[in-house]
Amino acid sequence: MSMDITFLGTGSAYPSPHRGASALVLRTEGECWLFDCGEGTQTQLMKSAIRASKITKVFISHLHGDHFFGLPGLLCTLSLSCSPHGDQEGPHIEVYGPQGLRNFLRVALQISRSDLLLTYAVHELEPSREQSPCTGHLDPALTTSSPQLHPQERPGRTVHLDPDSDCYSLVHDQRFVVQAFQLYHRVPSFGFAVQERERPGRLKVELLKELGVNPGPLYGRLKNGQSVTLDSGRLLRPEEVLEPAVRGRKVCVFGDCSALVGEGGRRACEGADVMVHEATLEDGQQEKAVEHGHSTPSMAAAVALACGARTLVLHHFSQRYRPAGDQQEQESGAVGDQQGGGGAPISQLKVQAEQALQGSCTRVILAEDFLTVPVVRQERHTQPGKNS
Amino acid sequence: MSMDITFLGTGSAYPSPHRGASALVLRTEGECWLFDCGEGTQTQLMKSAIRASKITKVFISHLHGDHFFGLPGLLCTLSLSCSPHGDQEGPHIEVYGPQGLRNFLRVALQISRSDLLLTYAVHELEPSREQSPCTGHLDPALTTSSPQLHPQERPGRTVHLDPDSDCYSLVHDQRFVVQAFQLYHRVPSFGFAVQERERPGRLKVELLKELGVNPGPLYGRLKNGQSVTLDSGRLLRPEEVLEPAVRGRKVCVFGDCSALVGEGGRRACEGADVMVHEATLEDGQQEKAVEHGHSTPSMAAAVALACGARTLVLHHFSQRYRPAGDQQEQESGAVGDQQGGGGAPISQLKVQAEQALQGSCTRVILAEDFLTVPVVRQERHTQPGKNS
Repeated sequence: MSMDITFLGTGSAYPSPHRGASALVLRTEGECWLFDCGEGTQTQLMKSAIRASKITKVFISHLHGDHFFGLPGLLCTLSLSCSPHGDQEGPHIEVYGPQGLRNFLRVALQISRSDLLLTYAVHELEPSREQSPCTGHLDPALTTSSPQLHPQERPGRTVHLDPDSDCYSLVHDQRFVVQAFQLYHRVPSFGFAVQERERPGRLKVELLKELGVNPGPLYGRLKNGQSVTLDSGRLLRPEEVLEPAVRGRKVCVFGDCSALVGEGGRRACEGADVMVHEATLEDGQQEKAVEHGHSTPSMAAAVALACGARTLVLHHFSQRYRPAGDQQEQESGAVGDQQGGGGAPISQLKVQAEQALQGSCTRVILAEDFLTVPVVRQERHTQPGKNS
Repeated sequence: MSMDITFLGTGSAYPSPHRGASALVLRTEGECWLFDCGEGTQTQLMKSAIRASKITKVFISHLHGDHFFGLPGLLCTLSLSCSPHGDQEGPHIEVYGPQGLRNFLRVALQISRSDLLLTYAVHELEPSREQSPCTGHLDPALTTSSPQLHPQERPGRTVHLDPDSDCYSLVHDQRFVVQAFQLYHRVPSFGFAVQERERPGRLKVELLKELGVNPGPLYGRLKNGQSVTLDSGRLLRPEEVLEPAVRGRKVCVFGDCSALVGEGGRRACEGADVMVHEATLEDGQQEKAVEHGHSTPSMAAAVALACGARTLVLHHFSQRYRPAGDQQEQESGAVGDQQGGGGAPISQLKVQAEQALQGSCTRVILAEDFLTVPVVRQERHTQPGKNS
């Protein structure tokens, strides 16, 4: 099954005609998972090849407006494309994000009297004190939402940091494990590690037939990694009749950050096939980047190196960096560009990451709005019969 | 001083790549007033010729998401373009809208920890029971916001319906009078009537000099419409030495509606130079339009006729109506088009309004995103010396 990532917005601070506000979609097996949902994401979705109705999960990295102000409108518009379904429940969307998101969505949807043809739940991540200088400044009334749910809201969990993994456990199903990890930013920010589960290799049916083993319960036991004794007395080990196991892919999406917090992130991202990391400013602006809780290409590369990521995709660029090929690539920004003056051309940010990665085999990609990056399965095969 | 209206979003229900969500700007004397602020308005502003930093007032007609979900993001982005101003206050924005808007903005800006370099105040209009079938359904906790203001929020008024004028009095300054009036929609909706004040005509200085009257206190009295007695004993009446008074222009912007409520709207819009009215669906879909609290071109034309408007600008079109010249003009809509199937071409909506206006001299204009409509002063002059 193919897996890919489509970038819907690669700009920082605000949406502009050149770069949308933060949003990307991980697409696999007919489902779309949205990571961040800045203002205008619904319009970017319409311009993309993504079918918005396939969105089943939304992950919000942190509560800066350019990462979540598009969520109420997206839910309203998704609802417009749902058919009335009588007594049955419509589509359901799981939302994961920092404390405060549930109340925001509830207030936005209630004040706009949005009567949805879909249901949603918000699972809130409890931030730690180490994540941000602002932690604890949020009025508790904003995070402790009223007990009254929006009519189409279903109860969500509060997810605490698991001290063993140093991560937040968000999803555990037959296909995927999703963990969140802590990042350092001006407000609590999270990254997300999506691990596809390993699938056992296929049975070599022709070989089994040659050995006189016909389809039946033995097939299941072999596929589950158990040895079986044939009528002939021969011990048949699973690795003899199984194709190599199919390794699961790993995709990591970082929220805004200038650093990881704790060990959880590095461990969760170990061996990532694709790591999506912010690079708001060029290397020459590192002091300013860190002051605002952001990263440069070299800083992102250091994280990719520490985790052994195969591909590093940079995004969340200051609006001063126009997309490659844009007529005004190096010109200064639009309405809200406080940073003034043109920076390096965007291609320079790729060079800076590549130089920092010299000697490793990590590939660097610069994201642009509507770029799709395939998540290719690694050729390395693991021992058959060892299902994770 | 010139005055014009620029449309930033002319689509209904949600923003699409073809039509932005509701927003328009009335521009005059170096100020911009924004009417409605759907998601994506800040990006539309960047694409337009409007200088967003000139926005001093925002009027929100009603609390459906496609009319106000863009407001928190707009304030954040406007703030980014402000320079730090030390102890002095930065720019200030007055926001007018239905009850609930103040709490929404406060929650959105607090949860996103938006520390603004501008200040704002929200003046809330108290809806009447006649305006909407939903009036009163809103949880009082949502409209009764906490006493704690956002750090950059300044106290706003609660504006009640004035029983004499049947309107809400919003602005009374030396240049403008702005009133809101009640509309019938699924949720409480308002229209806004902007009346430029009449300016007295200029003094005919050459004539005064010929009469031996030199610049001094007499000039002021004449300009204020008072007669004066000259040293010669001659009574000089102001109309003898004043150019004709300059009539003020009137612009009326309606929120979503299927009808006016009470007499306030008709009176406030009497003789409008430009009336901006919604026409969500074509005449053939009137039943459906009314069911959803919307209007057709003929319904809008009837309001323009009743008010004697000189120009009727239609906007807020169903996303099924692609802009004229759009390749897929008649094709069916995007992600959220619940209405399915292509409607009449958009040009047909103009024909329908014109037919309904036959015999009157009201001009019809179809708005498109980024269209600018000048508000021309009427040639009709009023009696000098009668300042309104």
